[in-house]
Amino acid sequence: MQKLKDRILKDGKVLPGNVIKVDGFLNHRIDPSFMRELAREICSRFDTEGVTTVLTVEASGIAVGTICAEELGVPLVFAKKAKSDNIEGGLYQCDILSYTYKKKVTLMVSKEWLNKNDKVLIIDDFLANGEALRGLINIVDQAGAELRGIGIVIEKGFQDGGNRLRESGLPLKSLAIIDRADENGIVFREDSDTL
Amino acid sequence: MQKLKDRILKDGKVLPGNVIKVDGFLNHRIDPSFMRELAREICSRFDTEGVTTVLTVEASGIAVGTICAEELGVPLVFAKKAKSDNIEGGLYQCDILSYTYKKKVTLMVSKEWLNKNDKVLIIDDFLANGEALRGLINIVDQAGAELRGIGIVIEKGFQDGGNRLRESGLPLKSLAIIDRADENGIVFREDSDTL
Repeated sequence: MQKLKDRILKDGKVLPGNVIKVDGFLNHRIDPSFMRELAREICSRFDTEGVTTVLTVEASGIAVGTICAEELGVPLVFAKKAKSDNIEGGLYQCDILSYTYKKKVTLMVSKEWLNKNDKVLIIDDFLANGEALRGLINIVDQAGAELRGIGIVIEKGFQDGGNRLRESGLPLKSLAIIDRADENGIVFREDSDTL
Repeated sequence: MQKLKDRILKDGKVLPGNVIKVDGFLNHRIDPSFMRELAREICSRFDTEGVTTVLTVEASGIAVGTICAEELGVPLVFAKKAKSDNIEGGLYQCDILSYTYKKKVTLMVSKEWLNKNDKVLIIDDFLANGEALRGLINIVDQAGAELRGIGIVIEKGFQDGGNRLRESGLPLKSLAIIDRADENGIVFREDSDTL
């Protein structure tokens, strides 16, 4: 999506360790009208007929996930990362290694909100090593639900999460794939608009 | 807001320890079209002229916060609860005691996204003991920004967070105030529609 690439080049910063900082519009400060454009673009890239649920993971997936869900007229379910008093009863759980926080976290979704009749579109703001997505896909499997697609705003193509998921045949589409991010700047994958 | 009260009575559950579970539409599974109605109602209760930023805290405040921000045509900033690689440089920080997770957490907002020229509407899904709000208000103060209002979806009126904030003269409005929640059901504060 050219407009997203332009925004990344305009507002993004590359920090040491190949960290791509886009917290001005995507994951700390949210630009909601741009988020609406991103959500529409993601939804347009999948056959969303019959999708019953958008699934994401707290925290920064919630903004784009909420708007995707509103576009599709279905609920958003977000996986939680820690047990709270507010979830009772049966849970789908999957341990992942958080890239952002460098530690193991457990993703949890209440069995009340996902079951074998659901057709799920997974949405997230960022894809790096794919651990969060692995957890969400595992939870969709545990529920016996149908995974209809995985829509990502920004994929770090130089980490192997995205490629590994594609090689598994999973229906992954990213609005921008960054193949290099260093002191020389940001380089996008040429064909990322059509993947 | 009568429609919210009706939804709480229809879908909410009271768990032991006065926990009010509304995770079917507010804070685990999100109903985005209802969230839109809540956001419009919150925005209608404040003078939002000149508001530059909606501020909330991860995670479950992000859904309603994003839609409020879209309604107002301004960015949403959400305070983070743990340090990540994706925030650099100066931070406003405030320690709070999380009611949900029973532990101390540090709220963090990048100084890049909040400053003395901002006029801030704070939004959150839940108000219990008011610790998260205390942290957000403290961060608005640190930034030297102007606090224009605090809009809450559900306030647990039997905990003292809301009353304490009102006594301090802070511009707090909640769409539904629950004064009792136990095995006998849920009782709303009579005048909560006009507060």
